[in-house]
Amino acid sequence: MSTKENLAEAFAGESQANRKYLAFAKKAEADGLPQVAKLFRAAAHAETVHAHAHLRAMGGIRSTVENLKEAVEGEGFEFQKMYPPFLEQARAEGDRAAENSFKFALAVEEVHHGLYQQALSAVEAGADLAERPVYVCEVCGNTVYDAAPDKCEVCLVPKERFTLIG
Amino acid sequence: MSTKENLAEAFAGESQANRKYLAFAKKAEADGLPQVAKLFRAAAHAETVHAHAHLRAMGGIRSTVENLKEAVEGEGFEFQKMYPPFLEQARAEGDRAAENSFKFALAVEEVHHGLYQQALSAVEAGADLAERPVYVCEVCGNTVYDAAPDKCEVCLVPKERFTLIG
Ligand SMILES: [Fe+2]
Ligand SMILES: [Fe+2]
Ligand SMILES: [Fe+2]
Ligand SMILES: [Fe+2]
Ligand SMILES: [Fe+2]
Ligand SMILES: [Fe+2]
Repeated sequence: MSTKENLAEAFAGESQANRKYLAFAKKAEADGLPQVAKLFRAAAHAETVHAHAHLRAMGGIRSTVENLKEAVEGEGFEFQKMYPPFLEQARAEGDRAAENSFKFALAVEEVHHGLYQQALSAVEAGADLAERPVYVCEVCGNTVYDAAPDKCEVCLVPKERFTLIG
Repeated sequence: MSTKENLAEAFAGESQANRKYLAFAKKAEADGLPQVAKLFRAAAHAETVHAHAHLRAMGGIRSTVENLKEAVEGEGFEFQKMYPPFLEQARAEGDRAAENSFKFALAVEEVHHGLYQQALSAVEAGADLAERPVYVCEVCGNTVYDAAPDKCEVCLVPKERFTLIG
């Protein structure tokens, strides 16, 4: 394989290791093993350093306009092409956990697609977006401006389950 | 594809989207676009929700002993099997950025492999690791107990480039 392909594979591996170790850290905390949890968090931080170094080495961080175009394309792929057949298959298998997970992600990627398109238009016109608070639902990832809704439109949890993004 | 395979692919996609969006957020800050940066951070947070939901749906979070075994295996694969040929290929292509990125990751995964083995032994013997501070090098990911070294053994930067993990 070429170095370009190797960087892509290494970025994929480091990205997934980071996410796993953060999940394993929470599990270790819940198991009453705070120092093991800290080790998982430390390794997760190191995998962030590796993932971002690989991403820079592959020229993956470009101008914000280019980055927004890539984000719009990625979100479009996920909600239009990737998640619909995944959702169908989970229903066919009767896997309710997977079905819910795919359903929430599909709905939220469509939201992200729209938000990134607005941001792209603003930056192409030479301006930042207007300053507004952004909230994210901890259950489905729903991403909304200004205020958390009384009930999440995607997964129906109450507004207390939303986090304000700093 | 089966739902099991679809969950693995969706987890890989969500994990990489999160890492990209965090990198794009830093670039947007540097470009003087703080609200676009905030949108990238919000979407990154949402992709964390998705990645962890998919990981739970695929049964990917088990007991801490099982999680540590998976971590030991993953780190072993990376430093013994994955990174050595990647490093060779980068040298053959004369790609210095990739060479450095692979070299640092290879060295640090070997460190992680040892640290996770110690943790596994402790937890298998029924105890947490002893409480100690953990520091991570922001340049190479080197992960050390107790204190940052005067000079990073892996990438040679001074101790100021280490971060204490909370
Ligand atoms: Fe790594
Ligand atoms: Fe998204
Ligand atoms: Fe929600
Ligand atoms: Fe997502
Ligand atoms: Fe590692
Ligand atoms: Fe270092």
